[in-house]
Amino acid sequence: MIYFNSDYTEGAHPAILGRLVETNMEQTAGYGEDTYCLRAAERIREACGAPEAAVHFLVGGTQANVTVIASALKHYQGVITAATGHIHVHETGALEACGHKCLVLETEDGKLSAGAIASYVQAHYADESFEHMVQPKMVYLSNPTEMGTIYKKAELEAIYRVCREYHLYLFVDGARLGYGLMCRENDLTLSDIAENTDVFSIGGTKVGALFGEAVVITNDAIREDFRYNIKQRGGMLAKGRLLGIQFLTLFEKNLYFEIAGHAARLAEKLKDGLTEMGISFLVDSPSNQQFPILPDTLLKELRESYVYSDQGRVDESHSAVRFCTCWATKEENVDRLLADIRHLLQKDEEDA
Amino acid sequence: MIYFNSDYTEGAHPAILGRLVETNMEQTAGYGEDTYCLRAAERIREACGAPEAAVHFLVGGTQANVTVIASALKHYQGVITAATGHIHVHETGALEACGHKCLVLETEDGKLSAGAIASYVQAHYADESFEHMVQPKMVYLSNPTEMGTIYKKAELEAIYRVCREYHLYLFVDGARLGYGLMCRENDLTLSDIAENTDVFSIGGTKVGALFGEAVVITNDAIREDFRYNIKQRGGMLAKGRLLGIQFLTLFEKNLYFEIAGHAARLAEKLKDGLTEMGISFLVDSPSNQQFPILPDTLLKELRESYVYSDQGRVDESHSAVRFCTCWATKEENVDRLLADIRHLLQKDEEDA
Amino acid sequence: MIYFNSDYTEGAHPAILGRLVETNMEQTAGYGEDTYCLRAAERIREACGAPEAAVHFLVGGTQANVTVIASALKHYQGVITAATGHIHVHETGALEACGHKCLVLETEDGKLSAGAIASYVQAHYADESFEHMVQPKMVYLSNPTEMGTIYKKAELEAIYRVCREYHLYLFVDGARLGYGLMCRENDLTLSDIAENTDVFSIGGTKVGALFGEAVVITNDAIREDFRYNIKQRGGMLAKGRLLGIQFLTLFEKNLYFEIAGHAARLAEKLKDGLTEMGISFLVDSPSNQQFPILPDTLLKELRESYVYSDQGRVDESHSAVRFCTCWATKEENVDRLLADIRHLLQKDEEDA
Amino acid sequence: MIYFNSDYTEGAHPAILGRLVETNMEQTAGYGEDTYCLRAAERIREACGAPEAAVHFLVGGTQANVTVIASALKHYQGVITAATGHIHVHETGALEACGHKCLVLETEDGKLSAGAIASYVQAHYADESFEHMVQPKMVYLSNPTEMGTIYKKAELEAIYRVCREYHLYLFVDGARLGYGLMCRENDLTLSDIAENTDVFSIGGTKVGALFGEAVVITNDAIREDFRYNIKQRGGMLAKGRLLGIQFLTLFEKNLYFEIAGHAARLAEKLKDGLTEMGISFLVDSPSNQQFPILPDTLLKELRESYVYSDQGRVDESHSAVRFCTCWATKEENVDRLLADIRHLLQKDEEDA
Repeated sequence: MIYFNSDYTEGAHPAILGRLVETNMEQTAGYGEDTYCLRAAERIREACGAPEAAVHFLVGGTQANVTVIASALKHYQGVITAATGHIHVHETGALEACGHKCLVLETEDGKLSAGAIASYVQAHYADESFEHMVQPKMVYLSNPTEMGTIYKKAELEAIYRVCREYHLYLFVDGARLGYGLMCRENDLTLSDIAENTDVFSIGGTKVGALFGEAVVITNDAIREDFRYNIKQRGGMLAKGRLLGIQFLTLFEKNLYFEIAGHAARLAEKLKDGLTEMGISFLVDSPSNQQFPILPDTLLKELRESYVYSDQGRVDESHSAVRFCTCWATKEENVDRLLADIRHLLQKDEEDA
Repeated sequence: MIYFNSDYTEGAHPAILGRLVETNMEQTAGYGEDTYCLRAAERIREACGAPEAAVHFLVGGTQANVTVIASALKHYQGVITAATGHIHVHETGALEACGHKCLVLETEDGKLSAGAIASYVQAHYADESFEHMVQPKMVYLSNPTEMGTIYKKAELEAIYRVCREYHLYLFVDGARLGYGLMCRENDLTLSDIAENTDVFSIGGTKVGALFGEAVVITNDAIREDFRYNIKQRGGMLAKGRLLGIQFLTLFEKNLYFEIAGHAARLAEKLKDGLTEMGISFLVDSPSNQQFPILPDTLLKELRESYVYSDQGRVDESHSAVRFCTCWATKEENVDRLLADIRHLLQKDEEDA
Repeated sequence: MIYFNSDYTEGAHPAILGRLVETNMEQTAGYGEDTYCLRAAERIREACGAPEAAVHFLVGGTQANVTVIASALKHYQGVITAATGHIHVHETGALEACGHKCLVLETEDGKLSAGAIASYVQAHYADESFEHMVQPKMVYLSNPTEMGTIYKKAELEAIYRVCREYHLYLFVDGARLGYGLMCRENDLTLSDIAENTDVFSIGGTKVGALFGEAVVITNDAIREDFRYNIKQRGGMLAKGRLLGIQFLTLFEKNLYFEIAGHAARLAEKLKDGLTEMGISFLVDSPSNQQFPILPDTLLKELRESYVYSDQGRVDESHSAVRFCTCWATKEENVDRLLADIRHLLQKDEEDA
Repeated sequence: MIYFNSDYTEGAHPAILGRLVETNMEQTAGYGEDTYCLRAAERIREACGAPEAAVHFLVGGTQANVTVIASALKHYQGVITAATGHIHVHETGALEACGHKCLVLETEDGKLSAGAIASYVQAHYADESFEHMVQPKMVYLSNPTEMGTIYKKAELEAIYRVCREYHLYLFVDGARLGYGLMCRENDLTLSDIAENTDVFSIGGTKVGALFGEAVVITNDAIREDFRYNIKQRGGMLAKGRLLGIQFLTLFEKNLYFEIAGHAARLAEKLKDGLTEMGISFLVDSPSNQQFPILPDTLLKELRESYVYSDQGRVDESHSAVRFCTCWATKEENVDRLLADIRHLLQKDEEDA
């Protein structure tokens, strides 16, 4: 079986494993206060052009999201998110378990807009019973989104302007950030993101690391006492150096971007190949998650050799699925997938 | 100014105040363990035809909702509610502050349907990542709803069947229960509700009491240790007898239903009167909240003499508003309101 | 039976009930935005000599404590309290249910000292793993304490100096504040308390009201958005005027202090009388709660006519109990209690 | 510098790293549903003699503790713990952040006793205001404790009898379990623990793994829906196999016990050596944490070559410190530490 169902099916980039083996018997301080963490944080600050930013390393994405959001909000404040937002849908209410409500906006493609955010906040304060409703205080968005779509620079800037106008924090969940930054339609840099957010994360789990998310904080109000929050939410790894070593390996040269670029190229190859076959998509994703709509008869055969993720029926005879590429994806497997789909489509046509 | 904006603009039914004065210097046990509370609970059990039910008295509605829901759910479980549900919109995230997520269904008229509930739960368990999502474990509905609509007996029975099939608790928020049960379209009794729910509340605040909600629990799983929950959520009144005396007064004879009936009659008079004038409604409410759509020019004049609640613009020149009747509403005020609207409509027509 | 077990056995001072009856059919705005609440808040500001303070009215003590503390703390911060503190012992973990830990100091007599607070905070920051421990950010004390003891002016000032030095908020729970301020050993005024705290409460439930606690906030950091917190914690009474009317009655003239003084005098009479009989006390309380140590044989007879609260065995043949006086206590009942104890003691002696 | 300050200063046992390298490019299912996790769980069930137990793998100790406790308790229930318990002292209130209170018992040596637990629970239910206090529902203990002490079989059995009598869950935190089970004074087996608890953890982080705690659940009431809880608390590792591979390596042969035994032998050598020198200890610990009391003059010199953990002053000229051995400790370093202390003691004596 070939797995295209997610971007965390393999272990880690070999350079990371090598570094872990190499440093294994060194003795270091715990809880993220070792020199690897310090150096990795420094590299990330440089890559972000944010020499004053605080950088912390957490184990996983749900943990990072919850820790960031709960550290920024007071009890009666909530976070604006797209209805498809990971915090709203796929974290078993981890945020509500911290006491905070998701303030949900419907979207077409998983992306929030500056206008929709502004309208929501205006409506809140215009309501005479505003104190009976959760106060919007943060905007959460993921880039790329859960639907693979990405924010253009102008869009992010517009959203951040609205956030500053209405005293909202802006948090960008970058669980797949590399795959967004390296796709051909992207015009954002890490520096742009650092300049246009209060806090964001850089995902390692899906981009070459065994696990780990770096959290980059540029707003002092969130930075203060952040390590208490990490510990409280269970995210302070005893052997913190494991995170430092991984992010140092990803960021001391250009590895993070190189391997993300590899996945981006393969996703584009897949998208272009499917498009050429006349296949349409659930959403027009420019990044490493592709959502083609395929005949159910074809899918029935495809699933004998491939693992992918179901996205539900689209009509009587077609369903949407998700294929992910990642740093570990082999080009030959993408080629084979394209060939198999092409072949099955032809067979379908002939049968018809 | 005449207030039609809510059903809690006056104090309490004079019989209640009289009883409080009469019993004022008696010494009693605290925290709901006095004889007034015991007798009131007994009267409510009789009125519900539920001799085994547990009955508790809490001060307010948000408190009652939160206490009931949090007592029934485990941390990872959530509650299905209409998008207009009070717990979702107007309790400043009190439920999320207890760690629980609202699982939101869109509705036309504020009413959940058995089918929509079943679909939601089926979809949850059909998802391969179901453990990444909050588990649906309770259904919350209010009767009447926040839009004044009511559940018919067959609808409630159907919902409760679905709840039992999928192991969901059913909780009916009866903040305005009397006004629902006494309206002319209603076919439910208190007994029907007790039989077709696991727990429900009977609102006093809006139906003649100074304050207070009775919570009636028929399901043993929720009943256990309920007083710990009341205390933890701040709902255990030191002078608990104040609640006991009020509910005893409302339920020892038929007062609760009599005064609710009064409000229901006046709401129907208002609805019929407005309908006769050709006025349409935001929603077809049979109970004590009426949502007529009126010309903005008319409303501008109306607000000089009346307080009502804005419900937002409907088109360029019309807005919806809410008028509430209650146990204390004077018929002459309803008559005057109808006359004033009729007069203003005619003026508008003449102007046009 | 005569109840001395608590200070909430009767209803309300007749002047309060009279005012509720008088205003009953007035229509007012809800949720604490009526003119009674506004006027009551103004009177309290005057009584406190704090023209800028925010004053809010909540229904009960647990609710007031939780709302104040949760509104002031971030998730990782906790509150320093005496081991006997009400929030730690008798609120069913209401504070922990909001996510906050009690940081507990042992005391002799229920009173925190400036030195003990300073030591605790110094030890926190001196620990290299300080981020693995809850950060102390608030001091909670009650005056009078749960053991009836009171803070002298110099003690409160010293504590507040430490709080400012270590950036801690100081919150005084005044559930029985009147009974402390009116006892003969007291040297504090309401103004002293307003000057030497960030927030405090003035209890109504135990001092003449049916229910209700006024929260007085002098620190801007806590004041902001406080009403969101009240609503979220279930403390926003729909008919908020009930609270306004009660506190207006208590504070527009001198009623609060007059009736508290009555209770204080009777407690002192009780204390002096028992002391004269050679009876010792569990704790030397100057306020309305008295904790005499009595022979078990005597208590066995006493409980046929009196309700009091058990405080546990002191030695093989003696137990401590609590007698409370309050605004409603009749002097003749105190006299009778003293006479009965004197008589039973003599009988005991004769028997021995 | 040689680190004796903790048992997580190195990476992982080489066999674990080797296995991670070997399996790195395999594609597997995520979130703990891969075959490595399934096989590791099976091995652990065998090692515990508990064929029906549920076994889950979480990343860290705080996370494991919080997930287990929160999954078992209702909102108003708390957990009995020693005052030195990790959940009470060193998890930044993670448990309170989930809404639950620590019910704290003072101990001499970090160990709870059956009698103290029984007394606490009896006192709870004997109190007439028991519903105003958090209900005790679980006992948390760590073995070894934070002070290095261990529970003997008879002690654990007695505690579990009390737990069953009072309907309390028993949870043993085994963050250092291997080091307890392999010390010379121990008479417990993994099977004994499985039989005498409802749930317990087996620590990997401190016993040879990069990270990871196995949670073994034998009580059905806790087992149900446990994965929802793991996800909600941020403990569901995307590449779950990393945990499976590590625990499989530790448990498929005898590695876990072998390497724990190595640390136990070295701790005993250290303890015996220090004892021979006439050094006393803060607590008589039989396991891998040793707490000698040393002259401050000696410590001043020792800290130039060794990292250890301060435990506070004992008298004017002595302080207690903690030395930990672990799976990675080199015997030569223990020998050197003993020689250096012996030498410094002699020098001190000569100086005196």
